[in-house]
Amino acid sequence: MRNDRIQKVIKQMKGKNIDQLLVTSEASLFYLTEHWVHPMERFLALLIRADGDCVYVANDLFYVSDKVTCPVLRYNDSQDAVEVLSESLADTGILGVEASMQAGFLLKIQAKLQKAKIMEASSCVLDVRMIKDEGEIRLLKESSAINDKAMKDLVNRIHSGCTEEEISHMAPEIYCSYGALGYHSCPIVSFGKNAADPHHGADSTVLKPGDCIVIDTGSIYRDYCSDMTRTVFWEELSPEMEKVYQTVLEAQAYASSIIRPGIPCCEIDRAARSVIEKAGYGLYFNHRVGHNLGLEGHEAPGISEDNPMPVKEGMVFSVEPGIYLPGIGGVRIEDLVVVTKDGYESLNHYPKELKILR
Amino acid sequence: MRNDRIQKVIKQMKGKNIDQLLVTSEASLFYLTEHWVHPMERFLALLIRADGDCVYVANDLFYVSDKVTCPVLRYNDSQDAVEVLSESLADTGILGVEASMQAGFLLKIQAKLQKAKIMEASSCVLDVRMIKDEGEIRLLKESSAINDKAMKDLVNRIHSGCTEEEISHMAPEIYCSYGALGYHSCPIVSFGKNAADPHHGADSTVLKPGDCIVIDTGSIYRDYCSDMTRTVFWEELSPEMEKVYQTVLEAQAYASSIIRPGIPCCEIDRAARSVIEKAGYGLYFNHRVGHNLGLEGHEAPGISEDNPMPVKEGMVFSVEPGIYLPGIGGVRIEDLVVVTKDGYESLNHYPKELKILR
Repeated sequence: MRNDRIQKVIKQMKGKNIDQLLVTSEASLFYLTEHWVHPMERFLALLIRADGDCVYVANDLFYVSDKVTCPVLRYNDSQDAVEVLSESLADTGILGVEASMQAGFLLKIQAKLQKAKIMEASSCVLDVRMIKDEGEIRLLKESSAINDKAMKDLVNRIHSGCTEEEISHMAPEIYCSYGALGYHSCPIVSFGKNAADPHHGADSTVLKPGDCIVIDTGSIYRDYCSDMTRTVFWEELSPEMEKVYQTVLEAQAYASSIIRPGIPCCEIDRAARSVIEKAGYGLYFNHRVGHNLGLEGHEAPGISEDNPMPVKEGMVFSVEPGIYLPGIGGVRIEDLVVVTKDGYESLNHYPKELKILR
Repeated sequence: MRNDRIQKVIKQMKGKNIDQLLVTSEASLFYLTEHWVHPMERFLALLIRADGDCVYVANDLFYVSDKVTCPVLRYNDSQDAVEVLSESLADTGILGVEASMQAGFLLKIQAKLQKAKIMEASSCVLDVRMIKDEGEIRLLKESSAINDKAMKDLVNRIHSGCTEEEISHMAPEIYCSYGALGYHSCPIVSFGKNAADPHHGADSTVLKPGDCIVIDTGSIYRDYCSDMTRTVFWEELSPEMEKVYQTVLEAQAYASSIIRPGIPCCEIDRAARSVIEKAGYGLYFNHRVGHNLGLEGHEAPGISEDNPMPVKEGMVFSVEPGIYLPGIGGVRIEDLVVVTKDGYESLNHYPKELKILR
């Protein structure tokens, strides 16, 4: 158990008048216990009380490491987990739950408790996870260094007649060769007009001259995620797509340049958006400029127009503006950055200059 | 849109007096719309009304295929999705939600609705998904045929001095070579006493003579999952582990042998458990005997002691008894089966006879 982290969570709980907090997301559970379990549909939780007591609730199937030093409540596949949990829940005050908890469990807990008020309190853990410590930043840098190499390999393997799927399917082997394992989400490989969908799933589309090629990829190294996007072109480039590329490149550079502790998240989004709007593509940048990242590929908070939270030292997030033109194509450029004492440092170093492959 | 499937869901809704149903799981959304989106933390839903009207709610970031033929409500990263959704929700009658929905969204919906009663109604879709049609069964067979080949390759690559991670990391490349992509869950590769944890995560443990080797692996082929477990031994085998192996083998065969339409799920679990209990290992079989599977690696219902539901033709599930001896090791043997008109057919054909590798 990471009692130092649990103490920080309890401080958050007290600031929000939360009497009990149910931590159920697997990344938060790992963060607090240093023990990974993938519970899938089964219930797994760490109940933290504001007085410092903790209870861990786990299915018999789950191995519980001796890192979990608090009392452990067990249930089996023929028992109702919430029934077992409820013996440890106080029916009074405020019970905080995480936004990502399964609604089915929440409804059962609501039916059990008469007096306690249940509220979403994800930020109790997420605000602690948001500030990465030295060891986490080192792992995130190592994870992104692997991603730089993987991106280079993927771009090098693009060839005449290849399909999106073919390139996307090469990623696991490439990551494995560098010691990284698995995905937080499948690599996006989009050719030509498919790239107008920011989250296009790689399919059997064949590469054609003039296509943009968007590669958005990341992996997991020693529990920490990477995430990067590059857009390159195949053989030819239209004047419009060149303008789109240079606009996104400028937006990415300008938004990054203003990052420092104290600047509101929304200003970073605004910075990127202002460059894209000025070039006349505002309508075609249809997502936030970035998201935090760590044990999960997407962590809170989003770097979005509606988030006034000031950036803090130790945050690690993506800066990934894009322009998506229906029926034509898209461009996205994404790096991860870590916020330093007086600015930021990029975790990615793969080049961003306009590149036409042949 | 698969209107045939939506009609079946509506029939389920009417049987349960559900006036509106919010479908939010990505597999269920694919099942009903034939359009995959990975929404991660963002809200994505198909609202189905008992009168047959549907509304699809999607972030601007998500490409909405023209397969989605109902009205589409859009929101962006600076808007509250539930605010947008609530314009289409009737505040009356019963609103069904899926158990897997994010609790954060449920709490916001609860705060919006004054009169409507909200209840968990996952079974409206899951009971339809549970019965696989001919096309789905064909894809599941193809997916498992690939898994048979992948298991053979993985077992063949076990060698003196190898680590769990080394074998586990070979899986993506092997699956890719057969046209399957990604995982529903990471392959489990457990050596020796690590195998006493049914869900052990592959680590740097080195193979030793006398170790059991549990490999639990599956992939995804054209959206449909595979899942199989084999246990083999390295160089030597203790009399106790031989007994454990033969017991699990017998339990797997006996539980499978009774599968036919009409038999309660719990009897299949009981059949496996009775063999293991008779051999004196009842305490060490600490999970249900199986789970359904299809678009997701684990689907409802579980084949567990507390589930009296009669098995139906077209169900596809795992039969995977195991015995786990703390400090010693474990054995699990798992095949997928499809329930036929008068029995079952195994989707896996990789041999199960006791095998000592050298």
